[in-house]
Amino acid sequence: MIIDKLYSSVQKKGVVCVGLDTSPSYLPEHLISKCGDLCEALYTFNKYIIDATKDIAACYKIQIAYYEALGVKGLSVYSRTLKYIREQGEIAIADIKRGDIKETASMYAKAHFTEDFESDFITLSPYMGFDSLEPYSDYFANKEKGCFVLVRTSNPGAKDIQDLCDRNGMKVSDAVAKKLMDCGEAVKGTCGYSSIGAVMGATNIVDISRLRNELDSVFFLVPGYGAQGAKASDAALFLKDGNGAIVNSSRAILLNYKKYDDGEKKFDYYAREEAISMNNAILEVKDERSV
Amino acid sequence: MIIDKLYSSVQKKGVVCVGLDTSPSYLPEHLISKCGDLCEALYTFNKYIIDATKDIAACYKIQIAYYEALGVKGLSVYSRTLKYIREQGEIAIADIKRGDIKETASMYAKAHFTEDFESDFITLSPYMGFDSLEPYSDYFANKEKGCFVLVRTSNPGAKDIQDLCDRNGMKVSDAVAKKLMDCGEAVKGTCGYSSIGAVMGATNIVDISRLRNELDSVFFLVPGYGAQGAKASDAALFLKDGNGAIVNSSRAILLNYKKYDDGEKKFDYYAREEAISMNNAILEVKDERSV
Repeated sequence: MIIDKLYSSVQKKGVVCVGLDTSPSYLPEHLISKCGDLCEALYTFNKYIIDATKDIAACYKIQIAYYEALGVKGLSVYSRTLKYIREQGEIAIADIKRGDIKETASMYAKAHFTEDFESDFITLSPYMGFDSLEPYSDYFANKEKGCFVLVRTSNPGAKDIQDLCDRNGMKVSDAVAKKLMDCGEAVKGTCGYSSIGAVMGATNIVDISRLRNELDSVFFLVPGYGAQGAKASDAALFLKDGNGAIVNSSRAILLNYKKYDDGEKKFDYYAREEAISMNNAILEVKDERSV
Repeated sequence: MIIDKLYSSVQKKGVVCVGLDTSPSYLPEHLISKCGDLCEALYTFNKYIIDATKDIAACYKIQIAYYEALGVKGLSVYSRTLKYIREQGEIAIADIKRGDIKETASMYAKAHFTEDFESDFITLSPYMGFDSLEPYSDYFANKEKGCFVLVRTSNPGAKDIQDLCDRNGMKVSDAVAKKLMDCGEAVKGTCGYSSIGAVMGATNIVDISRLRNELDSVFFLVPGYGAQGAKASDAALFLKDGNGAIVNSSRAILLNYKKYDDGEKKFDYYAREEAISMNNAILEVKDERSV
């Protein structure tokens, strides 16, 4: 199961998921001049970031929207970046948040688990219901693929639907989480987690601790670290013995170089520095708690 | 407002939205041989369908998953198909069902409302909350663009989340619908409908009639006609004086040719025939009801 590979990677390298939400505005000037083409510069930037972090990052999450915004050429950069990550033996999460009827979902499975856009994990949105997750299940069971389904996100509007409660006080996000637990049973790895994970943003300490206990076989993808406001102390709560979650940061890592006079030339070095300090900050909290 | 263009188109040509969910398996053999390349054949098929239906179809909905499944080359066909529809002066709905945080949504807006993938309307998923819709609003207000937000879909799993009720008995889908009514006020066209529409699948007659009354300024995109099981009598309930909704059919139109001995050679003719008979079937129901 692919989840075992992710678990080992966290065990070895820590909890940081480097988010390659690479906006053209993030690129150092000299890189654009050297590459002579925006899309080529984008790919080169990603490649440098991957090379500089692959021994300390658990995995990479690549947000397709940033590449779609550049049209067909942008999606070619998306494809090349995915290929590069996987050629290095690293894990690629395609942040695509798809969710559609069965026939369409089969097409998305083919799109994002094979050929040009092949990734190891994809993110999925559950609004259309649980049958929208079924077409992926063969890939989970037999083809070393996995997913993270949106449960509770980290944006202010997350409350609008995810926090709605039914007559028994059960939140929409809890209903989704419960379903993931059930579906996950069939694709549990030897590490104890299943290949069907959850996107789980920091809400409040009580909720996080409860969810970490209840969803003991669900691996969490925690968004919103750094630029979006989540803190090390929140992120640490998602972990169980230093594993069971990856914490994503994009802007804070990719743009760390802007804080330094020599940043432009050493953007990859500063990305690495930020990823290391983020990992340390989260794991220190964990250590404090277990004392 | 783009919604006025859609309203006029329905007024003039009827309620059919032709779904270009073109699977490679739908293509007649002779077309693949002639084009010598699957992607080229896919584009040619779409072009023939558009030419054969543009005087009787209100608009076209193109499901991006079918093109993503063919990788970068498939997305180039997606782009060319969108361009062809819009060059003919016809309306293109990009069925992408995106939903993400603000920064990412801005990228999706750029992706699907400008350049390579420019469409007139996009579909959006509300699971992440209403702030995930905000980044599109400038395009709705000032750039002749619109959207259809998933409210109630037509698949069996739709009940899993969309039908969950809060303490007051309000469904998740009703909460979304109410929000769309409010947001839509700012982008209402002279036709009385707003550029923020709703994807609204057939559930039961009582619900549809109630929603059509309550959401009097919300234009509906009705999925699931034909191959997915929705009937003319259901679809007609979404209309108000023969307008206010478009009804999408894909497989039943694109594959109608398979029923006929001379179908392969005349696939576009038979697609047209099916679209006409579908429109008549829906509008006849309406006429019967208004007698």
